[in-house]
Amino acid sequence: MPLTHTDREYEAELTKLRERILLLGAKVEAAIAGAIRAVVERDDVLAQGILDGDAEVDRLEVETDQLCLSILARRQPVASDLRFLTIALKLVTDLERIGDLSVNIAERALELNKEPALKPYVGLPVMAQAAQGMVREALDAFVSRDADRARDVLGRDETVDAYYEQIFRELLTYMMEEPRNIYRATRVQSVAKYLERIGDHACNIAEMVVFMVRGEDIRHRGAAST
Amino acid sequence: MPLTHTDREYEAELTKLRERILLLGAKVEAAIAGAIRAVVERDDVLAQGILDGDAEVDRLEVETDQLCLSILARRQPVASDLRFLTIALKLVTDLERIGDLSVNIAERALELNKEPALKPYVGLPVMAQAAQGMVREALDAFVSRDADRARDVLGRDETVDAYYEQIFRELLTYMMEEPRNIYRATRVQSVAKYLERIGDHACNIAEMVVFMVRGEDIRHRGAAST
Repeated sequence: MPLTHTDREYEAELTKLRERILLLGAKVEAAIAGAIRAVVERDDVLAQGILDGDAEVDRLEVETDQLCLSILARRQPVASDLRFLTIALKLVTDLERIGDLSVNIAERALELNKEPALKPYVGLPVMAQAAQGMVREALDAFVSRDADRARDVLGRDETVDAYYEQIFRELLTYMMEEPRNIYRATRVQSVAKYLERIGDHACNIAEMVVFMVRGEDIRHRGAAST
Repeated sequence: MPLTHTDREYEAELTKLRERILLLGAKVEAAIAGAIRAVVERDDVLAQGILDGDAEVDRLEVETDQLCLSILARRQPVASDLRFLTIALKLVTDLERIGDLSVNIAERALELNKEPALKPYVGLPVMAQAAQGMVREALDAFVSRDADRARDVLGRDETVDAYYEQIFRELLTYMMEEPRNIYRATRVQSVAKYLERIGDHACNIAEMVVFMVRGEDIRHRGAAST
């Protein structure tokens, strides 16, 4: 059956929506990487750039949201397209919060740069790369409607949690050694916690993708995640 | 114009949805209060009860989500009903995460109860009450479609943030005084951080209510919130 004019328009709208989501995803991925580099390289200018760039992420979130609403209102989709659109609505919220967490990391960088370095932060970039990879995979799974790929993201969360535990324990030793380390150590701990939460947001997205593809709700099979 | 049979059915479905959301809200409010009581009164049984009760919150989230999807698919609403339904979809995610944060508080309670008390936790219940009040007000604003009430919630977030700052600074002094306090102080700090994030979720809900009522998107007017 050939596509009607309306079908083609509708397809074009869905494609535009997918592109917007990927663009938003690329922006927040870059924000994570930049924010961590601002911590490790003690770079105030870079940190400020992440803070300034958040307006663009917010604009894209609102725009993508409105595009979803407009497609829902005009096309009144059912079945798998309805699931795709309602999941897109939820997913942009997760992406925007990942952007906010990158801003929080950049804020901690600005605080840490006012003090002497506590230690070389070798663990954070590794953890950040793992969390960032989860976000990318979750979005790729979304656009390619690939449930296996989404499940793979869920499996990686344990690694990110283990990195957090390792960094937290190492920081405890710095705090116990010397009271003057405590404040800085709590700042670094926050950074690691933000990365862990970015991994959790990637898992939220991945769970929604499994639901979208399989119609199977796998949320809440494991323990509470935040 | 008298209501048709279909109109009445539709109204009944929307009422059912509102009731589900209020029920979910009541459950997570009780979870916040219970989890904080478990910390303050050092009550393992209560903490375990919060952990066990999370399955009910999760079940209600999935059920409410499915109700939204089913109304969207069958009724194909437009304008303000469409906004109501898509916001309900996003809002249940916030409520479920507030439930998860209460579980996280209960987990910290179980850890803290294994050690001697660091100090009497007089600040946490006050902060918890403020955060819990924000959640209740945000939901009341949602069901009564009251934008002024929602804006009031946003104004209260500063107070919750100030409580966090106060508790954090007090904990720093305990950490600096005595290395053996450090681990417990970081646990208590986490509890305060979870409460702060509960306040942020209430703000997310409140912002969505303003959008629903006024059609005006007030997200991202201020700083990044997580």
